[in-house]
Amino acid sequence: MKNFVYDIPTKVYFGKDQIQSLSELVKNLGKKLLIVYGGGSIKKNGIYDSVLEQLKKTGGEWFELSGIEPNPRITTVKKGIQLCKEKKIDGVLAVGGGSVIDCSKVICAGAYYNGDPWNLVMNPSLIENALPLIAIPTMAATGSEMDHIAVITNEDTDEKIGTRHPLLRPIASILDPTYTFSVSPYQSAAGVADIMSHIMESYFSKEPGLILENVAIGLLKTCMDSGLKVLEDPEDYEARANLMWVSCWAINDFLKLGRPVAWSVHPIEHQLSAVYDITHGVGLAILTPHWMEYVLNENTVDIFEGFFRKLWDWQDKELDSYELVHKGIEELNKFYAKLNLPMTLHELDIDSSQFSAMAKKAEKQVQQGFVPLSESDIVKIYEASL
Amino acid sequence: MKNFVYDIPTKVYFGKDQIQSLSELVKNLGKKLLIVYGGGSIKKNGIYDSVLEQLKKTGGEWFELSGIEPNPRITTVKKGIQLCKEKKIDGVLAVGGGSVIDCSKVICAGAYYNGDPWNLVMNPSLIENALPLIAIPTMAATGSEMDHIAVITNEDTDEKIGTRHPLLRPIASILDPTYTFSVSPYQSAAGVADIMSHIMESYFSKEPGLILENVAIGLLKTCMDSGLKVLEDPEDYEARANLMWVSCWAINDFLKLGRPVAWSVHPIEHQLSAVYDITHGVGLAILTPHWMEYVLNENTVDIFEGFFRKLWDWQDKELDSYELVHKGIEELNKFYAKLNLPMTLHELDIDSSQFSAMAKKAEKQVQQGFVPLSESDIVKIYEASL
Repeated sequence: MKNFVYDIPTKVYFGKDQIQSLSELVKNLGKKLLIVYGGGSIKKNGIYDSVLEQLKKTGGEWFELSGIEPNPRITTVKKGIQLCKEKKIDGVLAVGGGSVIDCSKVICAGAYYNGDPWNLVMNPSLIENALPLIAIPTMAATGSEMDHIAVITNEDTDEKIGTRHPLLRPIASILDPTYTFSVSPYQSAAGVADIMSHIMESYFSKEPGLILENVAIGLLKTCMDSGLKVLEDPEDYEARANLMWVSCWAINDFLKLGRPVAWSVHPIEHQLSAVYDITHGVGLAILTPHWMEYVLNENTVDIFEGFFRKLWDWQDKELDSYELVHKGIEELNKFYAKLNLPMTLHELDIDSSQFSAMAKKAEKQVQQGFVPLSESDIVKIYEASL
Repeated sequence: MKNFVYDIPTKVYFGKDQIQSLSELVKNLGKKLLIVYGGGSIKKNGIYDSVLEQLKKTGGEWFELSGIEPNPRITTVKKGIQLCKEKKIDGVLAVGGGSVIDCSKVICAGAYYNGDPWNLVMNPSLIENALPLIAIPTMAATGSEMDHIAVITNEDTDEKIGTRHPLLRPIASILDPTYTFSVSPYQSAAGVADIMSHIMESYFSKEPGLILENVAIGLLKTCMDSGLKVLEDPEDYEARANLMWVSCWAINDFLKLGRPVAWSVHPIEHQLSAVYDITHGVGLAILTPHWMEYVLNENTVDIFEGFFRKLWDWQDKELDSYELVHKGIEELNKFYAKLNLPMTLHELDIDSSQFSAMAKKAEKQVQQGFVPLSESDIVKIYEASL
């Protein structure tokens, strides 16, 4: 285990009706608030009204930025920054999925920056200050509500980049599992795949760290079990609650402290959703098993074997290591199938025409991964996923 | 899962030589510091010198309170409070085991209180302010370095009481696994038993919470695996590091958020160590299997079955529920035996003469436990442990 500093200060208000805490929280931010949200589903399901009811109690003023895209764009971030500067905003309230929260994070940082905010994405060390952010997630997936990461798309360059800075972490989040009841089966399943991917990307490290491995397995089992329950009954509070809390712990840094690792599948997928605007979790579910098969070798087989023995409760299974791992990957594929997710890129109308260009962009980010990958390695993973 | 607020603000500096962070941390506290430690082992193993080297860099002043007992007494707490008030102390630095940290916590709160500090133990709602506390643990056991609990003994009344308040949580802790290399096999094993007990006491709840159950199992397996490794090789850095980090997460509240439960075995043991001054973890290892057998009934058998299936990887074991639980408890006993811990109260020269008096005192604290216990129930658990 490597040295680390644990510092995850986001305060989380978890459970049904925790929105009641919002007015007190907002009072501490200041008088002028920017509310950021997406396509307006929060107006249909009543969350918008609940938020406004709380804001009215504070006596403060608020402005709105709506229409944040599923893969939030730097042009939208710029609109938010302009609003913050014009209206002298004191704090931001992000109500929505990971895209809304990610977009809000860079708006918060951009409010204190005078250059092109894409610089903050490409070089987060330029972030020197940020407006305080409160997140109210409406789905369980990215875990953006408790982490310090934001993924932004630059539509001019077809790039989708994840940026990280401690100042991007929300100061507080309100997590009400009932807010996720109306998430469609497809989006719920994609969220499950995203959470699984965060946990697995943290698990695969050559640095030892038994506690992190074992907690990761506990989180992963919880995610998979609760994921299937949510598809059976979208209003299963307990399953929605487990998914919502797991989504935070999959990515809030805990699993990476002492065991730093550069992720591999995420950057490979980000290119797919940047170019084809597909749902991130869906891309991850398609790519992950193929990435596993591709990076399986004599240096990694023990780690994969340990992982699948723990994940599938195969402690006593008598199988050759490689056989066991192949079987483990097969089971993982079966699980994704149970989530009713597409299993190939073909199903998403993606062909091989952009593979080379995408791989070129992804390459820079996976050179430090669990197994370093070149452009041609990435193309092969895309091809296997067709 | 019940509603909760997650707020664990202790900043943790983890790893070898993290003591280097101390001078910067201390500068933020103020000019006058109280260092609290135990019997002086920190002077033999060099930790004291490392601390002083850091303090000298700050240009501040410091005072010392040494000789904190293994079960810290309220009279010692009073001495510390007096020092804080006389010398106008700005912050406290606890260097030692859980007893030193627990004692320091009540000193920190007592510095702002004018009555008898035992009142703060009996009624923590009286705590209105506390000096900032930095903890430097020298063993992995109580997890006091990241929690808001302090256990104090009143020698006049033979009472040992755990008190809780958010202001008791250290603002920062420095966890260097090498500081625990010199902990004896007996004390290391007792620490392992203590950590295991914290995890198990949180696990046994009638409130659902799959994520908490699964993370608890991950922590427990890590603790047991690393515990055995530490006994084999006291300087196994990785195993010491895992134990040290597990000890925090066993009790820092994470496992109890959403799944509140009043503990049972701890209050029953506290009476033992209050009267006989035995090592807390040793008492827990003796009592826990007997407590399990005693509270096993038709309402609890499913929870115990689930627990042992996960703990011992018995997912597919075909056994009747009760048989499986009895066998699970037997395995737990075997594990404690591997730690070379005493298995009976007789071995600690404890007879039944005080059982009734101790049970009377414990009763108040276990009426809300996983299975509520009366005085006579507790006597029976003591008797089974003889």
